Amino acid sequence: MIPSPLTGIVPPLVTPLSDRDTLDVAGLERLVERLINGGVSGLFIIGTTGEGPSLSYRLRRELIDHTCKFAKGRVPVLVGITDTAFVESVNIAKHAADAGADALVAAPPYYLPEGQPELLEYIHHLLPELPLPFYLYNMPSLTKVSFEVDTVHALLDDPRIHGIKDSSGNMTYFHRLCRQLVDRPDWTVLMGPEELLLDAVLAGGHGGVNGGANLFPQLYVALHRAAQSGDMARARALHALVMDVSTNLYQVGRHSSAIIKGLKCALSIEGVCDDFMAEPFHRFRDEQRRRIEQVLAELKEKIAAAVQ
Amino acid sequence: MIPSPLTGIVPPLVTPLSDRDTLDVAGLERLVERLINGGVSGLFIIGTTGEGPSLSYRLRRELIDHTCKFAKGRVPVLVGITDTAFVESVNIAKHAADAGADALVAAPPYYLPEGQPELLEYIHHLLPELPLPFYLYNMPSLTKVSFEVDTVHALLDDPRIHGIKDSSGNMTYFHRLCRQLVDRPDWTVLMGPEELLLDAVLAGGHGGVNGGANLFPQLYVALHRAAQSGDMARARALHALVMDVSTNLYQVGRHSSAIIKGLKCALSIEGVCDDFMAEPFHRFRDEQRRRIEQVLAELKEKIAAAVQ
Amino acid sequence: MIPSPLTGIVPPLVTPLSDRDTLDVAGLERLVERLINGGVSGLFIIGTTGEGPSLSYRLRRELIDHTCKFAKGRVPVLVGITDTAFVESVNIAKHAADAGADALVAAPPYYLPEGQPELLEYIHHLLPELPLPFYLYNMPSLTKVSFEVDTVHALLDDPRIHGIKDSSGNMTYFHRLCRQLVDRPDWTVLMGPEELLLDAVLAGGHGGVNGGANLFPQLYVALHRAAQSGDMARARALHALVMDVSTNLYQVGRHSSAIIKGLKCALSIEGVCDDFMAEPFHRFRDEQRRRIEQVLAELKEKIAAAVQ
Amino acid sequence: MIPSPLTGIVPPLVTPLSDRDTLDVAGLERLVERLINGGVSGLFIIGTTGEGPSLSYRLRRELIDHTCKFAKGRVPVLVGITDTAFVESVNIAKHAADAGADALVAAPPYYLPEGQPELLEYIHHLLPELPLPFYLYNMPSLTKVSFEVDTVHALLDDPRIHGIKDSSGNMTYFHRLCRQLVDRPDWTVLMGPEELLLDAVLAGGHGGVNGGANLFPQLYVALHRAAQSGDMARARALHALVMDVSTNLYQVGRHSSAIIKGLKCALSIEGVCDDFMAEPFHRFRDEQRRRIEQVLAELKEKIAAAVQ
Repeated sequence: MIPSPLTGIVPPLVTPLSDRDTLDVAGLERLVERLINGGVSGLFIIGTTGEGPSLSYRLRRELIDHTCKFAKGRVPVLVGITDTAFVESVNIAKHAADAGADALVAAPPYYLPEGQPELLEYIHHLLPELPLPFYLYNMPSLTKVSFEVDTVHALLDDPRIHGIKDSSGNMTYFHRLCRQLVDRPDWTVLMGPEELLLDAVLAGGHGGVNGGANLFPQLYVALHRAAQSGDMARARALHALVMDVSTNLYQVGRHSSAIIKGLKCALSIEGVCDDFMAEPFHRFRDEQRRRIEQVLAELKEKIAAAVQ
Repeated sequence: MIPSPLTGIVPPLVTPLSDRDTLDVAGLERLVERLINGGVSGLFIIGTTGEGPSLSYRLRRELIDHTCKFAKGRVPVLVGITDTAFVESVNIAKHAADAGADALVAAPPYYLPEGQPELLEYIHHLLPELPLPFYLYNMPSLTKVSFEVDTVHALLDDPRIHGIKDSSGNMTYFHRLCRQLVDRPDWTVLMGPEELLLDAVLAGGHGGVNGGANLFPQLYVALHRAAQSGDMARARALHALVMDVSTNLYQVGRHSSAIIKGLKCALSIEGVCDDFMAEPFHRFRDEQRRRIEQVLAELKEKIAAAVQ
Repeated sequence: MIPSPLTGIVPPLVTPLSDRDTLDVAGLERLVERLINGGVSGLFIIGTTGEGPSLSYRLRRELIDHTCKFAKGRVPVLVGITDTAFVESVNIAKHAADAGADALVAAPPYYLPEGQPELLEYIHHLLPELPLPFYLYNMPSLTKVSFEVDTVHALLDDPRIHGIKDSSGNMTYFHRLCRQLVDRPDWTVLMGPEELLLDAVLAGGHGGVNGGANLFPQLYVALHRAAQSGDMARARALHALVMDVSTNLYQVGRHSSAIIKGLKCALSIEGVCDDFMAEPFHRFRDEQRRRIEQVLAELKEKIAAAVQ
Repeated sequence: MIPSPLTGIVPPLVTPLSDRDTLDVAGLERLVERLINGGVSGLFIIGTTGEGPSLSYRLRRELIDHTCKFAKGRVPVLVGITDTAFVESVNIAKHAADAGADALVAAPPYYLPEGQPELLEYIHHLLPELPLPFYLYNMPSLTKVSFEVDTVHALLDDPRIHGIKDSSGNMTYFHRLCRQLVDRPDWTVLMGPEELLLDAVLAGGHGGVNGGANLFPQLYVALHRAAQSGDMARARALHALVMDVSTNLYQVGRHSSAIIKGLKCALSIEGVCDDFMAEPFHRFRDEQRRRIEQVLAELKEKIAAAVQ
């Protein structure tokens, strides 16, 4: 069962890999324990941070099975079913239900860009095939197509949809989403980019699906709580640390893979899991790893002092 | 066996479907016969026009099997293995080799955009896993990432790569590709957008992978021959007809799916195959179908008169 | 004299026109009075909302002269000098100083996009020519070029620069700007898009340069005060009204000119000034004007009730 | 008088400057002589290559006066009047007519992007104010707005418009333009990017407005003639040299200013004119100048051998 709305931090799990098509199962278990102990409200697997589209379907199924097993029902498991192929989305959805997952999440099909009427019809066709509650995932920089506000509004009445995760980075759009909550108070609106988690909660959003929570779950959980309880001084101090993570840890590499590489590298340094990356990406080499080590040491000290 | 270079028209086959996950096998057979009888130099399946990313893996395998069977070795079969997941690309590649296909084609992984060094390393890792000759596929409007000229140049020495299909629509880029042929005279450079087929052949390119050749194979084959033989008057007349197809047949719908919808609709009117579209797209409804019927009748008459 | 930092609402004035090259002087006077009476902290002329680039240089000078005269030193006047031609920016800057303006504002030259080193050198060359305090203006959607965070940082030591107005709509960027205030506590960071005014103040920004303040200055001033004083309940209620203005008043037309057209149309209905638009734009015609009338009536009632 | 259509090469002149606001008059005279002696069909000033938007209005007028004086009626002078301010476009147009120029050229206003109906209305309002024949200038990468094919078609009947220069680099668009010539055989369609000059002439276009013709007018004139006369072997050889200019001379710097910087640097090395650049750009410094020297020496030798 998944609460409605779902509040708090739902980290988009990195996918621990020990080889191109081999799950680092022990690393996954450590990661799940770390996150649940860190106070997160759910686990989101097979998203962008989880390198979802880069994983083979076999590995996606294995990842679902193990995550559900390790979570033991302590927090809900949300499974990304974003795919360019409708049938494969449904296949993964059914596997997720069988494995005991709690909800499904999908961004628009992301090869040939569809128009909004096509996207709306797609969701209408997808919903009857899904065995679990469903969340929209807005990620236009990667899918080319947005769930425009009017499209979200057209879907607002469907009880099978429980909310939306917005990774557009467009705070005006997020405000527009939140204003729709008047008509659907049980809906969940979650923020992707962690730099906007504070803004999101102050705007009436329910929480964050923030990559950095893989590494520092307590920081993001604490920021969410401070913001929600109106403790602005503490919220601002914690937000400043989140900005530090963003500025220092995510900008070591030049390409858009830098965020995931930085997170996996730091988790590997922490002994949580392997930092193998699915193709076409590769783990940081020595020089970059050393920079991550430095950055990580500084961040850990500051964050430990702030998060009590 | 695939000739080097591969010259002429290699249509990117539409994928005949009779339902969401059901291949229209009889339609595929008619389509293959029509194309081979039309004088094409090869068959390219599971590309953009073939709605490749929208097809389940099961259906992709079935499509490969049937196409190879129907082609009977009369022309080479090229199979698209573009995928966000490395392992799935390799799986399809192996299936294609087992089924008797002749070559493989891949665009860059198309979810999280990779930098050029990452893309280069990806190709270096992919090549040893591939059992068949390989073509690059440049499609930046859909993959977000281009095979930049320097990246192509860095791959030019590898004998496993036989050429490139360029669907960027950027004729300056295409000229740059063609200039690399000095160093690799056996390479093939093919043009995607049919509006640029004449330009491509005049620039030294070898042919086209043009969607319209599904419908009017003789037109594109004739244009290629006229251009290659320097019969500019005939080439210009045929090019004008290709522009007519582009302007009239591909602009009935508003979205980027309009080209494939128009082609499938016309093929259905012609009795070749079903016009079912894979999700998230849908066949043209009545009003648009009637417009396609009109356009098609006019085009057929003009093209029949020109192509003798 | 301009305070450092400059806090509150600094509306980007629409430019009242009665013909293609004729200033509506009486309308300008009414607008200036309305804004100063509404509690604004400054007047920004010749910006994007002011159709600055569409105005002849003669008219820009006339506009500067009249605005300074009407303001009578009650609030500072900031003058946009954004231009593709360096010399013309300097000419306007000198005219502004002679007319008694208080500060200058410039976005990057906006035809051929410059690299960040080129932009930095441009600002270094511009500053010695300017007779008044200077603000950067970040507007990448229109200038193609952003003042990247590192570029802003490189300019942070220069006492001639007093701050930045950010109209990127990118709240993560705004947070990065605000974090630089540690090193320059007298700097001003202002938010352009009014939908983000609340976020901006909560993030540590000093205020807003919001188009809607032309029409409802009290609303934006009240929102700024509520947010700054930590009265979150009131801030949220006022922010909701700002979102109503944005959603209803700015989306009557289809093109990017819809915001300015909507504002000028509403100001004309209110009897403040003429709604003539500089080419290539044109005032709303009858049907759209009627929709603005409806929207305006509803908004006025709600806003009057909220802003006491 | 300007021929209809205008065929051949119409170089977009660089603007020789000896300081921020000082025309290098002697350099301009040498440049004009060099181009007319090189066989060009016209001179286009105050375009993108001429750094038009970066020049003060005073300097633009001086440039018009001197160019018309130096041209002495031997070839037509076309004057760019592109501007964000309608009135300034008209002012420059009138000055050009008074100075004896032959035609005017304008791209869409390039700050706030206008919709196609707004653009069409803008041209309808501009035309009655213009004292000379007019050419459209399509440059969407810099103006954000394209003259879409339907918009061009809606303007095709107006006798005051003599043609269009297309710098989109989109060869499919260019083909669409050329197909409109059926309805207006006196229209001129010119290609901006020199890499596509050969394609353009083969497609039925009339010539090129190519930056490289500032430096090597004979090369572009010879290529145009070879292509027009159907001497494909010679055309291909000359096109290869144009590609060499593009690849080697225009890619020394990293930013979009690299083309103009490279051209001005080479012209300065050749002793034609000063290489001062209008802000926000700056001439190449020593290291880049040395690379241009090398490249130039190689190109001159090859081009001299080919162009007889």
